[in-house]
Amino acid sequence: MVTGEPERVLDPVGRFNRRRVIDTLRIAGRMARVELTAATGLSPATVTAITAELLRAGVIEETAAEPALEGAEEVEVRRGRPRVALQLRPDAAYVAGVKISMHQIAVTVTNFTGDLLGSEIIEARASRRPAAEVADWLETALRQGVASAGVRLSDIQGVGMALPGFIDGEAGVCHWSPVFEEPLTPFAELMSVRLGRPVFIDNDANLATLAEQWFGAGKGIPNFVVVTIEHGVGMGAVIGGRLLRGARGFGAEFGHTKIQRSGALCRCGQRGCIEAYLADYAILREASTRAPVEGVSDPVLAHQAWRRLLEAAHAGDMGMREIYARAGEILGVGLANLINVFGPELVTLTGAGVAASPFFEPAMREALALNTLSASADQAPVIIRPNADSVWAHGAAALVLERLDFPLAS
Amino acid sequence: MVTGEPERVLDPVGRFNRRRVIDTLRIAGRMARVELTAATGLSPATVTAITAELLRAGVIEETAAEPALEGAEEVEVRRGRPRVALQLRPDAAYVAGVKISMHQIAVTVTNFTGDLLGSEIIEARASRRPAAEVADWLETALRQGVASAGVRLSDIQGVGMALPGFIDGEAGVCHWSPVFEEPLTPFAELMSVRLGRPVFIDNDANLATLAEQWFGAGKGIPNFVVVTIEHGVGMGAVIGGRLLRGARGFGAEFGHTKIQRSGALCRCGQRGCIEAYLADYAILREASTRAPVEGVSDPVLAHQAWRRLLEAAHAGDMGMREIYARAGEILGVGLANLINVFGPELVTLTGAGVAASPFFEPAMREALALNTLSASADQAPVIIRPNADSVWAHGAAALVLERLDFPLAS
Repeated sequence: MVTGEPERVLDPVGRFNRRRVIDTLRIAGRMARVELTAATGLSPATVTAITAELLRAGVIEETAAEPALEGAEEVEVRRGRPRVALQLRPDAAYVAGVKISMHQIAVTVTNFTGDLLGSEIIEARASRRPAAEVADWLETALRQGVASAGVRLSDIQGVGMALPGFIDGEAGVCHWSPVFEEPLTPFAELMSVRLGRPVFIDNDANLATLAEQWFGAGKGIPNFVVVTIEHGVGMGAVIGGRLLRGARGFGAEFGHTKIQRSGALCRCGQRGCIEAYLADYAILREASTRAPVEGVSDPVLAHQAWRRLLEAAHAGDMGMREIYARAGEILGVGLANLINVFGPELVTLTGAGVAASPFFEPAMREALALNTLSASADQAPVIIRPNADSVWAHGAAALVLERLDFPLAS
Repeated sequence: MVTGEPERVLDPVGRFNRRRVIDTLRIAGRMARVELTAATGLSPATVTAITAELLRAGVIEETAAEPALEGAEEVEVRRGRPRVALQLRPDAAYVAGVKISMHQIAVTVTNFTGDLLGSEIIEARASRRPAAEVADWLETALRQGVASAGVRLSDIQGVGMALPGFIDGEAGVCHWSPVFEEPLTPFAELMSVRLGRPVFIDNDANLATLAEQWFGAGKGIPNFVVVTIEHGVGMGAVIGGRLLRGARGFGAEFGHTKIQRSGALCRCGQRGCIEAYLADYAILREASTRAPVEGVSDPVLAHQAWRRLLEAAHAGDMGMREIYARAGEILGVGLANLINVFGPELVTLTGAGVAASPFFEPAMREALALNTLSASADQAPVIIRPNADSVWAHGAAALVLERLDFPLAS
């Protein structure tokens, strides 16, 4: 977290247990204290102290209980106490999440329980631009999004930002991103100073994964993988319930794994990367071999060109269909490799690129079947999720909710 | 765990905390109670109760303390108590670890602190043999190993077994292994009934990884990958300090990830697997294209043929050197993919195949540099570890030490 506010000194053990109570309530929805004790593994005295503190701070609230656990209810009834449950107070905090891609910026605002209060999308040509310029667009988009959610920026407890590229979220530093001109940008600090709010940044595919874990198909699944097809090809992995960050903090990198020696040339300068067959630039490159494609140097025009090619495939263009089918085959081999090394329970595919799934999915599934081990008969299902940038931005908001601590900064 | 003994009912929360105390002492060597409280995050009362219980059971012992933490020492001195530390009692338990490969069986015996008391290797042609026959060899090898360590089999608290193939360690079931004729073998139970001791089984590469984590280069490293080159190509990954097991419980599978479309035919029936270029059978296949290779249908003879080919390379055979160099290039691409997706702090290579590293290492390092992302300038070091089957067997013993509970079965 990078913020202009003075740091508050908090007991780290206390914070850890407080976090545990909040996260348990978030997943359960509502729980009686006795259930909370069982679910957190904390002592009854600790749970009583923490919940009292959180009630005082307005972070949680008491509510009429529904019986969630049979046994727990019986205990309460035997003791003759009125049955009261605890839940997070939705208005305890507001946070914002932002997704920056090369042709647009998506903003969402959520309350403390992660419910969407509003979302906005603005067009922006964020391709190798000065960080200060991207920051301008972001601030405009954010102020617009926050206003349309009926919240004041000063009420936002933190902003999460999803960026493509190599992001060290812990340090708040962008090591490289296609949206920035500068190779190294301390972007969390830059935005935090500008907005006067705490700002957290992370790789966009990681936040798409967090969105899947908090709100989507990954809910409650300890091991799953998310693959994103956009301007680049990204991934995130949840292992044992936690996002894989790796030693460098950059998370998992799938787009530049190689599945073909001396294969297609990739923007990274290497050959045979999955991205060199699958990313939007790879599709435009193949299509331009058949007929000139306009505007590939501008990210907004390139995205429009990509959409026109997809429309051509829908209209029956067999050449375009063949291009997507080949991309699908490569994707299938890549997914098979991921399934082999991670052994996930689920793989989800998302990103703007899944709009082309009617044309790549059959070849993808065939390659997947041909390249996973027969021993994995009960192989991880691969599902395609409809994409919306607001979902990624929702994941960016979840990143803030995951890191908020109490008492809140004001 | 599969055992003939009646199950003892133990408090699972108590067991978890007991485990935490034992593991903390194992890593630290020795610790005062106050340090143990800080390191485990348990309350002083819980630490006092657990250590008293473990002292009574002879699992830990008191010893003169060396000051490990400055602050801790001061606290003790201020209180005017004699400074006493706790450590695991080496003789609290004995365990055995076994590695079964297709041409030999290695057995190790260790004490409770994991010190090697003895190890034995016996030759055995364990290639698609009936499980009962493999069990005979194993029992012979185990009795020999235990006797040479000066321990009685009845004093062994558990036996860990490293098997190649798809092993569900939790269930104790081998789903497929090149050593067994049967496709599905409840091998832990079979061996446990035969030996009258608890038996745990796991994939051999997972146990080579555990050996690296407990006794080797992975000590204290939260994220690392081990790649094994043997009859097949295996891997294990430690993520956040824990062995990756995946949804199927089989762990990570590296040998059948694809790096070449329509590539070399693999024993698995698919094409372009890393194993199809790198495993011993792949080297023999390439060599046999140049000149006939004898005995490839028998695992012991095949291993001898493999060693003769390596000697030929040492003697200057340029054709063999080229074969190893190509295998090295493929390995380098595969390792680059692993580094991209896992972002580990360290990669270690081991297995019988590393004997050929003088001939594959240069090409491997070149391919590694060419195929990892430039952003990973501070990329994970790849180190080659000398191989000994006794090291894998030591990892199998560590698996038992990880699972032992107290009071011990008798």
